[in-house]
Amino acid sequence: MLDILNEVKDFEIITIYRHTGADADALGSQFGMKYFLESNCPDKKIYALGDDVGSAADMFPTRDQLDDISIAKSCAIILDTGNTERIDDQRYKMAKKVIKIDHHIEVDAYGDVSYVDTKAAAACEILALMFENSKKVVSTACARALYIGLLADSINFTTTSTTARTLQAAAYLVSCGLDVNKISQERMGMSENDFFYINEIRSSVTVDRHVAYAIMDASTYEKYGLDYNLAKEKVFAMANVKEFEIYCLFTEDKSYGEGYYNGSLRSKNVAINEIANDYGGGGHANACGVKKLTKEDISRLVNDLANLL
Amino acid sequence: MLDILNEVKDFEIITIYRHTGADADALGSQFGMKYFLESNCPDKKIYALGDDVGSAADMFPTRDQLDDISIAKSCAIILDTGNTERIDDQRYKMAKKVIKIDHHIEVDAYGDVSYVDTKAAAACEILALMFENSKKVVSTACARALYIGLLADSINFTTTSTTARTLQAAAYLVSCGLDVNKISQERMGMSENDFFYINEIRSSVTVDRHVAYAIMDASTYEKYGLDYNLAKEKVFAMANVKEFEIYCLFTEDKSYGEGYYNGSLRSKNVAINEIANDYGGGGHANACGVKKLTKEDISRLVNDLANLL
Repeated sequence: MLDILNEVKDFEIITIYRHTGADADALGSQFGMKYFLESNCPDKKIYALGDDVGSAADMFPTRDQLDDISIAKSCAIILDTGNTERIDDQRYKMAKKVIKIDHHIEVDAYGDVSYVDTKAAAACEILALMFENSKKVVSTACARALYIGLLADSINFTTTSTTARTLQAAAYLVSCGLDVNKISQERMGMSENDFFYINEIRSSVTVDRHVAYAIMDASTYEKYGLDYNLAKEKVFAMANVKEFEIYCLFTEDKSYGEGYYNGSLRSKNVAINEIANDYGGGGHANACGVKKLTKEDISRLVNDLANLL
Repeated sequence: MLDILNEVKDFEIITIYRHTGADADALGSQFGMKYFLESNCPDKKIYALGDDVGSAADMFPTRDQLDDISIAKSCAIILDTGNTERIDDQRYKMAKKVIKIDHHIEVDAYGDVSYVDTKAAAACEILALMFENSKKVVSTACARALYIGLLADSINFTTTSTTARTLQAAAYLVSCGLDVNKISQERMGMSENDFFYINEIRSSVTVDRHVAYAIMDASTYEKYGLDYNLAKEKVFAMANVKEFEIYCLFTEDKSYGEGYYNGSLRSKNVAINEIANDYGGGGHANACGVKKLTKEDISRLVNDLANLL
């Protein structure tokens, strides 16, 4: 296992990065690393960089600011990022040494030191086990950041990537003084507005064979104070229904003008990304997206999906 | 830690019990124990007894049948039950030896051997750690039963009773060959009917200060093929909303005649059981119930709850 304290020992400045469109595993591993180094290297200056924060941002501090000269002197640690293009703050290239720590399938083999474990459910799992192994101080703040990332990427310990090691990492983090109940309330709680908007989605569901879908107009989500980005995330409103093999949320995107919808498509078992490709979209086998659909396109798309089952 | 194989070694017949109104921890610990003994004592006859199965029943086998004479020869193991009155199948009293294993606060100190750990999040947690400690065979079926009970009583590892030990127990069970993704799909999946009924509840929600409540008539839940018992369980439809400090589901119970409702009351932080008591109900501080309320009673009750906040 990588000895991170040994790797950074010759540097006074450490810069920490993660991918663009940061999710909870990206931010959790970034701040988990920051807190671990702060506890164990009080003489070093440690910065969490990166502009682009997503919907998990409210559970983490804001990023640090740093000038180019300082970055050029630093050791860069890049977390949860498989390809160099997605590293948020490309100034990492200026750093004296680059360390990659990741759990994605390797797209770019970058870094002077690289530690990739594709069997880990989350980058936060790798760090939790690394820090436990180090026998050094792990503060509650560090454990909290890692636990949030672990929960997010393993979807509360339910994904196929969740292993005994994932739960061992979780057990270790809880032993560092976490209040799992408080973390859960922070993570799972939705606003009353979201509750009622999700209800609108569920009330709009149409079922065609085993495909469930909802078409949501901008006027509806705006009524609940939501913008397009927040509205389109709510595809989970149709998750966990036994009969819904495939479920899709079509959300109006007014940037294309009126009457155009972007679709978030989810499938439990069948691969649906080829159909997404047919409509100019893309993504993973069980989670993909299509942009700029008319209502007629949606009808055809839903029919094509239903024909897969 | 209790050496269960040593405790039962002199018996040819072992009978296993749990509490009435069996939940997933009761059934999980009962069948987990049964499978463990079957793997490790192939010469013994092992029976899971008890009539009263609840909504978790579809994830477990049906109970065994056994005559009084066999029970009288047996060693009885009683799981997850704090008081003797709730033991499902009172014939346990006929058994030659009684072993109690539980995580509830002790109401009745019963049993020739008693192993009570109130710090465990679930009876299944106690068994998982006991079986791990034994170094004996733990089959995947045994691990699955225990994991389901552990998830249920810890509400997916989110309750205040969830400790590092709970997650260590979970890690051990997963290492016995569990497919956590499959278990999650089995547990979390709701039927399309439930989806649309839950939606009716959510569409009926009224918010009074930070109390959310829904009043559901029998005609509505019957439209979705639900009976009273299945309908009243759906109080979770209002969970996890930041603004809802207290939430209540009032479900019509036609056994009292028309227009009478039973309430399931939930609170995040404030104790509400004294108010439940004022209306002739009872239960825990944050989860309690009241029976036979008119709509006028409900208005007064909601007002009393809102005044607590």
